[in-house]
Amino acid sequence: MKGLIQVYTGNGKGKSTAAFGLALRASGRGLKTIIIQFMKQGNTYGEHFAIAKIENIEIVSFGKPKFVNFKNPSKEDIELVNEAFEFSKKTINSGKYDIVILDEINIALNFKLLEIEKVIDLLKNRPENLEVVLTGRLAPQELIDLADLVSEIVEIKHPYQKGIGAREGIEY
Amino acid sequence: MKGLIQVYTGNGKGKSTAAFGLALRASGRGLKTIIIQFMKQGNTYGEHFAIAKIENIEIVSFGKPKFVNFKNPSKEDIELVNEAFEFSKKTINSGKYDIVILDEINIALNFKLLEIEKVIDLLKNRPENLEVVLTGRLAPQELIDLADLVSEIVEIKHPYQKGIGAREGIEY
Repeated sequence: MKGLIQVYTGNGKGKSTAAFGLALRASGRGLKTIIIQFMKQGNTYGEHFAIAKIENIEIVSFGKPKFVNFKNPSKEDIELVNEAFEFSKKTINSGKYDIVILDEINIALNFKLLEIEKVIDLLKNRPENLEVVLTGRLAPQELIDLADLVSEIVEIKHPYQKGIGAREGIEY
Repeated sequence: MKGLIQVYTGNGKGKSTAAFGLALRASGRGLKTIIIQFMKQGNTYGEHFAIAKIENIEIVSFGKPKFVNFKNPSKEDIELVNEAFEFSKKTINSGKYDIVILDEINIALNFKLLEIEKVIDLLKNRPENLEVVLTGRLAPQELIDLADLVSEIVEIKHPYQKGIGAREGIEY
């Protein structure tokens, strides 16, 4: 089965969550998934605790407790993103996985914390059977052009419009 | 924590998958979720096999092997949808869950296999702390008006445009 490239982008809730659901479904079929999180700290999200117990899904996070200031990223932020990319490259080329999820990479690409050319090159030269899923707002056009599946999640309504913040177990 | 109403709609891939990811995340926080599938047969999707192994997530499906012809549903199709609704009502009012996912209910509502008034009434009178997630294309406006969070998943690109069919482990 030839692997495809899937992109989940847009400003609405559900992008990373859809990728986690995809990993969950795949695990039910015995497929092996790794989720590589860009600019997210490990062990602070509900998904880490859940995934730790599931066969066939691994999760690795590259991030700091503080959110990245995209308009003025620190040297450390850029280094961490590129470290995540090098890890992704090694992982993709290892041939050990059926699905690789690059969570939040799109936004890093949009703000040029990572060069799009590097990612396009990696995707084009990946093992033939590998499915790659890229999530995050503002996916660059070059990525959309290359992808086989693109879903844009559009925010129609969000609880923060009513002043409700992120809730443990639901949003994180 | 007051429960909210979340709706995932639109023609793109990722609606049910986002709901499964949400259940997965919640399980990592010890929250209890039930997924009630409208018009989908059990034990034929990767998610069933995966969920069977996860604590705190249950899945119940109401459907036949054959797809529903929405423009001309059979009596049996309508009965099964209403059976799923009665089960949902009992489940929601049981107070046993933190999250109830009504998977694909939106499309049943759009094609009038189920009366929207019944669902609105159930949602308005649910236990205060219960989060309810409704998925499926063509969510009715009344539901969007009532919801706290609405994400529309828009299909930008889909592999079937290239003649690639649904793949085991990825799409089902």
